[in-house]
Amino acid sequence: MPKLEPYNKKLPYSYALGAFPALKLLEYRPEAARRLLLRPESDKSEGVALLREKCASLGVREEMAERALERVSGKENCFCAVMFEKYESALSASAPVHAVLHRISDQGNLGTALRSLLGFGIHDAALIRPCCDPFDPRSQRASMGAFYAMNVKVYDSFDEYASAFPRRSLYPFMLDGSTPLPRAVKAARFPATLIFGNEASGLPPEFARMGTPVRIPQTSEVDSLNLAIAVSIAAYAFTNREDT
Amino acid sequence: MPKLEPYNKKLPYSYALGAFPALKLLEYRPEAARRLLLRPESDKSEGVALLREKCASLGVREEMAERALERVSGKENCFCAVMFEKYESALSASAPVHAVLHRISDQGNLGTALRSLLGFGIHDAALIRPCCDPFDPRSQRASMGAFYAMNVKVYDSFDEYASAFPRRSLYPFMLDGSTPLPRAVKAARFPATLIFGNEASGLPPEFARMGTPVRIPQTSEVDSLNLAIAVSIAAYAFTNREDT
Repeated sequence: MPKLEPYNKKLPYSYALGAFPALKLLEYRPEAARRLLLRPESDKSEGVALLREKCASLGVREEMAERALERVSGKENCFCAVMFEKYESALSASAPVHAVLHRISDQGNLGTALRSLLGFGIHDAALIRPCCDPFDPRSQRASMGAFYAMNVKVYDSFDEYASAFPRRSLYPFMLDGSTPLPRAVKAARFPATLIFGNEASGLPPEFARMGTPVRIPQTSEVDSLNLAIAVSIAAYAFTNREDT
Repeated sequence: MPKLEPYNKKLPYSYALGAFPALKLLEYRPEAARRLLLRPESDKSEGVALLREKCASLGVREEMAERALERVSGKENCFCAVMFEKYESALSASAPVHAVLHRISDQGNLGTALRSLLGFGIHDAALIRPCCDPFDPRSQRASMGAFYAMNVKVYDSFDEYASAFPRRSLYPFMLDGSTPLPRAVKAARFPATLIFGNEASGLPPEFARMGTPVRIPQTSEVDSLNLAIAVSIAAYAFTNREDT
């Protein structure tokens, strides 16, 4: 077996670190799982017992790999991990709602945003480069495994995404968007694509000329909401319309 | 002048650490400000220049206090801080929406939740003990200064809060709440109180018998939303009703 390296984005594989994310990986992407890494003292945990059982039934090789785990999990210091091959996802053309995350830079924000999207039944997310690496274990950890249940695809530009899905209604979220969210939701046309910008700089101004630019109404007493919160509110609002 | 101590909750004073929170303190609670602490190298910053100007006009004493800043700001390593006396707040009886945070334990969650509440125009928050200390600089930092603009009061029990404000409609947020949020919002009666539980354990079951227990509709694919996100969605929904 080749020696496992600490994660970096050039590797063809990644790690689901910890019992909960690893179980989610096996649930949604069983075909990608390659090796189960365990520590000798991990066998008291219920989660690990379940993980071993599932790996055995899938034919995923189990290894005592204390030093490899130390090496690959860094500060997390996990008791178990599943090493898996990176896989390709395609967005679903028929999904009523897509999310586009434009130039997101923080792994934790990405993971938290994905988790909220999935929580509101949005399974399709496009990431526009430059962006953080969705296969990075930190992003997967923050997503609580939501990443594995979703179709997440990275595009070189927004145009590349828009050419692939030309007939969707676009809703760029901008601080100075012309339409308040409740009104945008009321008049929403599906299939819809909700577009969110970088944590610090938001969306570039040219997005104001696309579709229906939306603002989340807020008092002037605070600065903008953080990205994961804005994504969560938008996802809630578009998937819980009063007239549906 | 007495020697300033690193913050602990028994002190009669606290610190607004950094130029942005300190400016918010001076804006909303000028009467509480006591001392402006600066580092010698801080004078290149625009925020600090504004802070010095405001403190001068308020008669707040300015001190070069590099070692005190190191001591009180810990890892934050701030260039400036305003030391202020703790103050009492009372909730507004006429406010259309109150938030109750029941046994919140994390400073960061508390601060982020307060920031979202203020962003949606909710100025009144009751904290039910045991809870983290709202005057802790970490909570204030996470609130981005929203804490100073709000009425935040700590109660020994929920009953104590409810006795003080007996005629409000109660909306406890629970994973198994009987009414989905969109329906609760549509039928909402004001003045209203939105109630949120501890990060790990939620609200105790007896809250299911109070007012209208609300659930934020979610797919079964993820665990519960984090506290700050749940508070943000609820605050958005109750302050952006389609029929208002």
